[in-house]
Amino acid sequence: MTRTPLTDLDEAQLLDTTLRDGEQMPGVSMTPGEKVDVARELDAAGVHLIEAGSACTSDGEREAIRRVADEGLDATVTSFARGVRADVDHALDCGVDGVNLVVPASDKHVETKVGSTRDEVVETTVELVEYAKDHGLWVEVLGEDGSRADVDYLERLLGAGLDAGADRICYCDTVGAADPERTAAVVSRLADLGPTSLHTHDDLGFGLTNVHAGLKAGADTVHGTVLGVGERAGNVALEEVAIALGRSYDVDTVELSRLYRLCRTVSEATGVALPPNKAVCGANAFAHESGIHTDGTLKDGTMYEPYPPETVGRERRLVLGKHAGRAGVKAALAEHDVAVADDELREVVARVKELGERGKRVTDADLLAVADDVRGRERERHVALVDLSATSGGNLPTASVRLRVGDDERVASGTGSGPVDAGLEAVRTALAGDDDGDRGEGVAFDLDSYHVDAITGGTDAVVTVEVDLCRGDRSVSVSASDADITRASVVGMVDGLDRLLAAEADAADADPSAVADD
Amino acid sequence: MTRTPLTDLDEAQLLDTTLRDGEQMPGVSMTPGEKVDVARELDAAGVHLIEAGSACTSDGEREAIRRVADEGLDATVTSFARGVRADVDHALDCGVDGVNLVVPASDKHVETKVGSTRDEVVETTVELVEYAKDHGLWVEVLGEDGSRADVDYLERLLGAGLDAGADRICYCDTVGAADPERTAAVVSRLADLGPTSLHTHDDLGFGLTNVHAGLKAGADTVHGTVLGVGERAGNVALEEVAIALGRSYDVDTVELSRLYRLCRTVSEATGVALPPNKAVCGANAFAHESGIHTDGTLKDGTMYEPYPPETVGRERRLVLGKHAGRAGVKAALAEHDVAVADDELREVVARVKELGERGKRVTDADLLAVADDVRGRERERHVALVDLSATSGGNLPTASVRLRVGDDERVASGTGSGPVDAGLEAVRTALAGDDDGDRGEGVAFDLDSYHVDAITGGTDAVVTVEVDLCRGDRSVSVSASDADITRASVVGMVDGLDRLLAAEADAADADPSAVADD
Repeated sequence: MTRTPLTDLDEAQLLDTTLRDGEQMPGVSMTPGEKVDVARELDAAGVHLIEAGSACTSDGEREAIRRVADEGLDATVTSFARGVRADVDHALDCGVDGVNLVVPASDKHVETKVGSTRDEVVETTVELVEYAKDHGLWVEVLGEDGSRADVDYLERLLGAGLDAGADRICYCDTVGAADPERTAAVVSRLADLGPTSLHTHDDLGFGLTNVHAGLKAGADTVHGTVLGVGERAGNVALEEVAIALGRSYDVDTVELSRLYRLCRTVSEATGVALPPNKAVCGANAFAHESGIHTDGTLKDGTMYEPYPPETVGRERRLVLGKHAGRAGVKAALAEHDVAVADDELREVVARVKELGERGKRVTDADLLAVADDVRGRERERHVALVDLSATSGGNLPTASVRLRVGDDERVASGTGSGPVDAGLEAVRTALAGDDDGDRGEGVAFDLDSYHVDAITGGTDAVVTVEVDLCRGDRSVSVSASDADITRASVVGMVDGLDRLLAAEADAADADPSAVADD
Repeated sequence: MTRTPLTDLDEAQLLDTTLRDGEQMPGVSMTPGEKVDVARELDAAGVHLIEAGSACTSDGEREAIRRVADEGLDATVTSFARGVRADVDHALDCGVDGVNLVVPASDKHVETKVGSTRDEVVETTVELVEYAKDHGLWVEVLGEDGSRADVDYLERLLGAGLDAGADRICYCDTVGAADPERTAAVVSRLADLGPTSLHTHDDLGFGLTNVHAGLKAGADTVHGTVLGVGERAGNVALEEVAIALGRSYDVDTVELSRLYRLCRTVSEATGVALPPNKAVCGANAFAHESGIHTDGTLKDGTMYEPYPPETVGRERRLVLGKHAGRAGVKAALAEHDVAVADDELREVVARVKELGERGKRVTDADLLAVADDVRGRERERHVALVDLSATSGGNLPTASVRLRVGDDERVASGTGSGPVDAGLEAVRTALAGDDDGDRGEGVAFDLDSYHVDAITGGTDAVVTVEVDLCRGDRSVSVSASDADITRASVVGMVDGLDRLLAAEADAADADPSAVADD
């Protein structure tokens, strides 16, 4: 595709982030330690400026900002400040490099919210900019609700800020109400005054559209937040700005290969889940299910991808469901060393599609069960759950299991932090070998991941548990559903383990030296 | 804000949706019944065309498409068809109004994927369009991977389709790789040929940016999917197209007040959660936490909102956290009939911020506990959990509780579909009155919602349970965290109930006639 130059941009100053706006997302709050972790990742990726918080908020917030400021990052570290001197003083106390000074710009904010006048706001702004500059701070002046402000006044207000010594002014679409035409019209006037940044929100879905329009109109810098966390529908997503500018316009903002890692760090620190269908970081961003797409992708990785997943530090994933086709199913079976004849493959594909139609996520274990059945293989289970009981609610959650392992029965109990954790411990204990060998050989395994989708709708909702287990270099994904979370979890673990042991036994039949060592 | 006319658009034909692409999202599959529910909601909102599925997929898929086609909807109902006659025949079998005929357009797709030539593809396309038209179908020709195709060839291919009788052609940014300049350049050439639609994906975050550019370049129609479900990073979100065009350009696409309901229906049918920070449908889209925003919003609803939540069928929500301010806390207390003195309010705000800083979502129960404490009210608990035990894993999950209710102790057990459900039943039983009255008066309550965030990271992860309880016309939100999901759930329910009873007792003291009737 032909690249279109966007505009002359100073790449080193292009991308800022605001942890402050991210944390204004209802329900989101980071501890000082989490904030430092996120700031380090942002800095390592090459983000130019980090607004670490709002120093006026509280002692705890000031401690967090101070810790980020003391990290010795390459990034400029700033604090948010309202248009009052006390806020600038609080910022100074934190040892930041600069302030993002927010003053009301629209009449709604000037008059109704602050109860002031246009002239007064200009006067205060000039005073505060001079005060902050006198104290050695870098200063950006943000005209709050600027997209809904009278443009002549906005120009006067921010121009006065620049004249007073501010280093940059910011076009704020505070409520995400602007369209790209409005953005371009306002930004082109501000950019004539001096260095201008863009602060856009996504309430109309126009967050990135307005960034594009604003950069074309002459803006120099974009405020983004990782995952687009922020007030209401959020800010423009930093990772989307980075990949869109990088791929479409060859503009380097941050190190793209660190984007996925950055998204995960922020997700963990904020508790905001990664939506499956989100650019760069979604679980499906590089996953292919439909037959056409999987077939095409197996022929040529670029067939259904705009850029290689490695660009942002990820890997491609093929998954099975109702749109599955022959090529994808065959490739998935091959990953488990299973080869099937052509007529069998047709039948396996049909059954996988059937499972998919019932709304079921088709896991490795499901696929292998289908393949066994189609090939008429009456396989014996290597491990099966015979009995399970767990107590919880009290001080010491406890579980017991009775497993059939080959021809043996093994009974064991375990404790844990909850019924599921106790159940896992009981399974581990039942499968552990002992020195005498009278319980048979030990069967070790690792639980790579344990996931339960959010539960909503009632206490009797069916819960689907997904686990990834591995043993040696083999791994398997399994899911199990039950209204009883304890049962779903333990059944999933035992089923997965059974699949791993079966694969091992098959491999040993083919090559007796290939069995995993415990 | 000044409205900018976008272009002359025929509003009635502006917005299509593709259930087919939505279902190609890995892990998503709707049953025929769910598909019909979603199609009805789309139709009621006024979506112009519904691509109900891909008839070549399977018998089950054909049944689903047939059911949608038989619903007698106002919307045009179509099926996806690859460039082979069998697919058109399958579509005809389903009784649809038309087909979305997808043929390869980029050389990568023509040569590598299909193993064909440009000329052959044009020839097949013409044959199939004529065939479909001869059978009375409405036909749209989609040039797959059109954004990466040679534009001269794309023009020739789609032009041949129109000449053969196709009703519309489609610009497909199949892999979400185009920037708006490319989109505008290609679409302006296609729109000169005849009616043109836009099919955009969000891999670079440019889904809506490209819709905007494409409409300005002369396109007539947009393909969107609710929540942006779809391959990889998904399609452009239908609800964002609708609100962006409606608010920014006064263009009516669908009934906006049905958008939120539509999003919820699709979320339930597909299992794709609503991301908290997503335009229109996210839990936070109209929620305000920070002091500045809450204060402003209480003064004037439009202060921090681009449009009223009622526009899309929602309500505003104020929440508390580390950025809380006096106005928001005061309003939240008033909702629970709690009035505090000014110095007390200052202290309550400080404590709420402290809770928020620890990363805790501040619920009604948290706020009320803080207020009690600040006011030095040693409140007695009306209900307290003394003992809890639950068994699960087997056939009959069972729980028992010992509660202190006023001066009584009540013990009861219950069964349920899992340990939490059994726990709820035990609490209900313990609190139910009996005819003799020797267990005291009954305390009925409703569990309005029960929610557990997705659990990841291991079987010993701390689980946070959020419940909304109500009794009469009072309701309360509570959260509780524990590594033991049973304990967290029952503790949350009992704490919430305790709060409701306390509020009732306070009201009865003030006005003895105001106690809720059981």
